[in-house]
Amino acid sequence: MRLEDDERIGGRPTERARVTRVRDGVVSERPDVLAAEEPLEIRLEGEAVAVTMRTPGHDTELAIGFLTGEAIVRPEQIANVLECRSEEGDGGVVDVKLAPGAKSSAGWQRNFYATSSCGVCGKASIDAVRVAADPLGTGPTVDRAALEAMPDALRSAQRVFERTGGLHAAGLFSSEGTALAVREDVGRHNAVDKVVGRFALDRALPLRDRALLVSGRASFEIVQKALVAGVALVAAVSAPSTLAVRLAKESGMTLVGFLRPGGFNVYSGPERIARL
Amino acid sequence: MRLEDDERIGGRPTERARVTRVRDGVVSERPDVLAAEEPLEIRLEGEAVAVTMRTPGHDTELAIGFLTGEAIVRPEQIANVLECRSEEGDGGVVDVKLAPGAKSSAGWQRNFYATSSCGVCGKASIDAVRVAADPLGTGPTVDRAALEAMPDALRSAQRVFERTGGLHAAGLFSSEGTALAVREDVGRHNAVDKVVGRFALDRALPLRDRALLVSGRASFEIVQKALVAGVALVAAVSAPSTLAVRLAKESGMTLVGFLRPGGFNVYSGPERIARL
Repeated sequence: MRLEDDERIGGRPTERARVTRVRDGVVSERPDVLAAEEPLEIRLEGEAVAVTMRTPGHDTELAIGFLTGEAIVRPEQIANVLECRSEEGDGGVVDVKLAPGAKSSAGWQRNFYATSSCGVCGKASIDAVRVAADPLGTGPTVDRAALEAMPDALRSAQRVFERTGGLHAAGLFSSEGTALAVREDVGRHNAVDKVVGRFALDRALPLRDRALLVSGRASFEIVQKALVAGVALVAAVSAPSTLAVRLAKESGMTLVGFLRPGGFNVYSGPERIARL
Repeated sequence: MRLEDDERIGGRPTERARVTRVRDGVVSERPDVLAAEEPLEIRLEGEAVAVTMRTPGHDTELAIGFLTGEAIVRPEQIANVLECRSEEGDGGVVDVKLAPGAKSSAGWQRNFYATSSCGVCGKASIDAVRVAADPLGTGPTVDRAALEAMPDALRSAQRVFERTGGLHAAGLFSSEGTALAVREDVGRHNAVDKVVGRFALDRALPLRDRALLVSGRASFEIVQKALVAGVALVAAVSAPSTLAVRLAKESGMTLVGFLRPGGFNVYSGPERIARL
């Protein structure tokens, strides 16, 4: 299993900009660093599946994570992945090629008008999501202290956030609390896709004994993507939504919210947290 | 122009839940309030256009704001709007009916597989967005102090955030800093659609002398939606992305980031901020 960071092939994850800065009445012109957001077209066998606005870097992981997370392809069906950068320099394309004889999930063409890179549209019913996912296993048991230490580990691995002050992150952790992969993106769903895609490329799905931590809130889409990847413990730094909690409960997933030093809330499946 | 709040017709914006709470080693069971997230299907003349995960409330505004923001219909083409709640109680439908003879923008059916309720997919090129939007006018001139006071006004109008600790908001402000409409949603793009939809229903577009404030970051989609609605000044509480800045600059829009008491950054169009 190869877990080191990919080198980015697409554009840069940050860009420099001049900014007019106002602080306590003092106006100055100074350089600033922005988190990059550029379109990526995800293709399957040459056919456009989706266009997502993402932070360049780990584009192959993003495409694979998206396609497997939407249950359009299975990791073992993938033969190779082509990355190219559009000539205008403001976007990129990832084309996923299937192995001979492999067929993608039927019906995505028909339904995709209503689905999206955000993973929410077209998946209006929890039932539809559950069909696409295998039942969760026993999953990890995570110590309370290890859980509470995860947000600091996530943040310290966020290279782009440090410089821009504005980026989502997702991290996959061992049950001991070790960060195995951390990815950043302007879109939280993209950050999760990149993490899942990393392990899909390594043929390491399902992620049975791992915990997934996301910066910000836990929405339906995050729980959905975790479920399809086989992750039984999802934690978020901020609040979960009603539908996230409902899907977690119905899937037997542990869902933690407001995970911060000194405390957290458990919305579903407290049995996976040791010494609670 | 009618600007008072709509009563919600769909589901509830919050739900009660039992939660296992851990704080400084003390575990307790207690009631909690969650921000609701439920699917809404947006239909045009009975045909499904998109499914978005949204916080119930102001569903008509959301549908109208989405359809006008994606340049699929113009406000004056709308004859009436039907809202219904799905029988399962976990979703809703809004069907927008056009006036006799009115035609929606050609081509959305063909392209919509790649667009999304997030307003980003399928709008990969800035050019495509700019075609859909009229040029911005002179726009508002906002005093620095009025600008700095907007985040507090936004937060104090956020009824659901207070109870759940996790919801995005968008607010439309006069050039004097008065909040004209504030909407909340689990999706930032939905909050903007709801605000724009309110004024579309009132036939008050374009929003030439108004400022739009969003909680969180300013992404491409936020600037795009503001541009189509004719808003010339967009402010965000957190960081903008590269593409948001690029679209703002190319459109002659004022873009403010990190707007907080005591300061802010101007990424584009500082001339609309008085006494800078």
